[in-house]
Amino acid sequence: MTITLKTDLCQILDIEYPIFLAGMAGGPGTADLAAAVSNTGGLGTLGAAYMEPEAIRDAIRKIRELTEKPFGVNLFSISATDDNTRMEEVQSELNQIRSSLGLSPKAAEEVRTPSYFEKQFSVLLEERVPVISTAFGVLPEPFMKQAKQAQIKVIAMVTTVEEAILAEQAGCDAIVAQGSEAGGHRGTFDLTNRPLGANIGTMALVPQIADRVKIPVIAAGGIMDGRGLVASLALGAQGVQLGTRFLTAAESGAHPSYQQRLLRSTEESTALTTAFSGRPARGVVNKFVEFWSTNGIEPLPFPTQNTVTRDIRNESAKQNNADYMSLWAGQGLRMLTSGHSAVEIVKDIIQKAEAILSPE
Amino acid sequence: MTITLKTDLCQILDIEYPIFLAGMAGGPGTADLAAAVSNTGGLGTLGAAYMEPEAIRDAIRKIRELTEKPFGVNLFSISATDDNTRMEEVQSELNQIRSSLGLSPKAAEEVRTPSYFEKQFSVLLEERVPVISTAFGVLPEPFMKQAKQAQIKVIAMVTTVEEAILAEQAGCDAIVAQGSEAGGHRGTFDLTNRPLGANIGTMALVPQIADRVKIPVIAAGGIMDGRGLVASLALGAQGVQLGTRFLTAAESGAHPSYQQRLLRSTEESTALTTAFSGRPARGVVNKFVEFWSTNGIEPLPFPTQNTVTRDIRNESAKQNNADYMSLWAGQGLRMLTSGHSAVEIVKDIIQKAEAILSPE
Repeated sequence: MTITLKTDLCQILDIEYPIFLAGMAGGPGTADLAAAVSNTGGLGTLGAAYMEPEAIRDAIRKIRELTEKPFGVNLFSISATDDNTRMEEVQSELNQIRSSLGLSPKAAEEVRTPSYFEKQFSVLLEERVPVISTAFGVLPEPFMKQAKQAQIKVIAMVTTVEEAILAEQAGCDAIVAQGSEAGGHRGTFDLTNRPLGANIGTMALVPQIADRVKIPVIAAGGIMDGRGLVASLALGAQGVQLGTRFLTAAESGAHPSYQQRLLRSTEESTALTTAFSGRPARGVVNKFVEFWSTNGIEPLPFPTQNTVTRDIRNESAKQNNADYMSLWAGQGLRMLTSGHSAVEIVKDIIQKAEAILSPE
Repeated sequence: MTITLKTDLCQILDIEYPIFLAGMAGGPGTADLAAAVSNTGGLGTLGAAYMEPEAIRDAIRKIRELTEKPFGVNLFSISATDDNTRMEEVQSELNQIRSSLGLSPKAAEEVRTPSYFEKQFSVLLEERVPVISTAFGVLPEPFMKQAKQAQIKVIAMVTTVEEAILAEQAGCDAIVAQGSEAGGHRGTFDLTNRPLGANIGTMALVPQIADRVKIPVIAAGGIMDGRGLVASLALGAQGVQLGTRFLTAAESGAHPSYQQRLLRSTEESTALTTAFSGRPARGVVNKFVEFWSTNGIEPLPFPTQNTVTRDIRNESAKQNNADYMSLWAGQGLRMLTSGHSAVEIVKDIIQKAEAILSPE
């Protein structure tokens, strides 16, 4: 049997199992969850993309208090300026939702989304995090250089063969091949001519990428248990990245209403939407997604849409109302479990995989 | 190793390898290709959905001249009447394409698509074909009864867990779980509220279906070689169905211009469209698909759109012009090979799978 759970990638990153926690920004990907996954022998990841630099520093220090194992921090590698055109149109749509939540309406004022990336990156460098992973693009050349000099491993998420080749050429140590099943934001670098991103299924994407890059490939998208792990290794991946499966872990930062909705959902419950952030992402369809798919109004681009919808998502969470918060999730929802800790989830994945791989 | 290529499904269908040729209607799925795949030890399938009953009989007899092995015949299990509303609108759009091909324009006359299904089924019954497979639905109860009485094995293609349960309850011997990567028509039974069908990636769909039915599951969608075969078995499937990989086989009936276009395409070249038949299907984006995605006109429902576009597809083929013919294909196109016979393709799949499964 040429399939082994002890892949080269495990040695490169000094981890026991090639199981990666997806970088889940906006709440779920806490320091607790990241540390818990790392303590199991996989690689935990802090979902830091939306966090303020000093909050990231605090979270990194908390992770280090909770584990001595390697971990990663995930950022959005993108320099996008706000697009305030059509602000009036979009705010008047959002004000309908605000009134239903008892929020006061907002005027069509210009927004300026603070661009944290450079400061966020400086913190990761200063704290010498073991792994930096990025979505939406690879680290720009000067940042990549600094990361390498600090002996930080760099992983980029990609959605096409072309992006995988770019990531390898840029010096990434590994890439995450994100199939269309995956929950959360599509990692697609350039949305020109593909407003919903590139959406290639994991079964087709992983081998096509593995055939064209030498660096290790981590499969993502629809992988929920040991079956998906073994399948991904058979396709040529050296590891798997899971987000959805960990959303209901004991250490998850996902809102309880979000978790409850996930546990009532099926493989058909999700869709791609740009309504929450302006970038395409897969989540469980709720009232907010339906509202934007029927109102005939185009959401603003990233990050502006994300900034102007934040008060609504926060209030929805405060009211324990899953109708207006982002319910990021992949297509494997029937395989979701509840009431387990991260260590129990990883053990379950490994045991199921070993059972498949064990001699009869 | 609990993964074996000799699955129960092989015994049920009396085949050597659990490799199935997809039912490719409209040209590619010829008697020659079906017989060739069956002769390799897999299960070949005649793509008979659009064929006249007596032509099916001739093809079945030709298959039996070419092989003594079991084979299948694929039909569309759907009773759809023509929708002639908006015929003027659609024909005037099509007439723009006709003029560019040198075809004379068509008036907005009512079309009546002949409904062959009952006669097609009678031929399969009379000829006692070993396997009947269906798309768009399961065999209606009286037909299922007759098939069972004739000891014909019945396979239905499904795209959701609900459809899989319906197929099992209806008495199917096996089901094809069609992931979103798959080329050709989406098998989704009911398109209400999902105009492009259910599109769950293979990695997520197969285990969720395998968890909920007892009959064998055949994985389809993005599977192109031995890696996809082993991955599918790890996910809980007992076999794999491939269409795209056989489109460029020596015995394929796919038009040479179609094959050439496929061999120049990538994982990003395909999209879902209803422009050719009125039902959603995945194919390489060409001028015809682009025309219908930008003209703001809704194609007519199946089978009417298929009937009114036939002269255009035929003329496009006659002119060796791939711009206006349906180029059905899945998302694994970079793994497509050329210049091989069906037997070489199946041998390659099996050898790669055995290499993955062999002890190190």
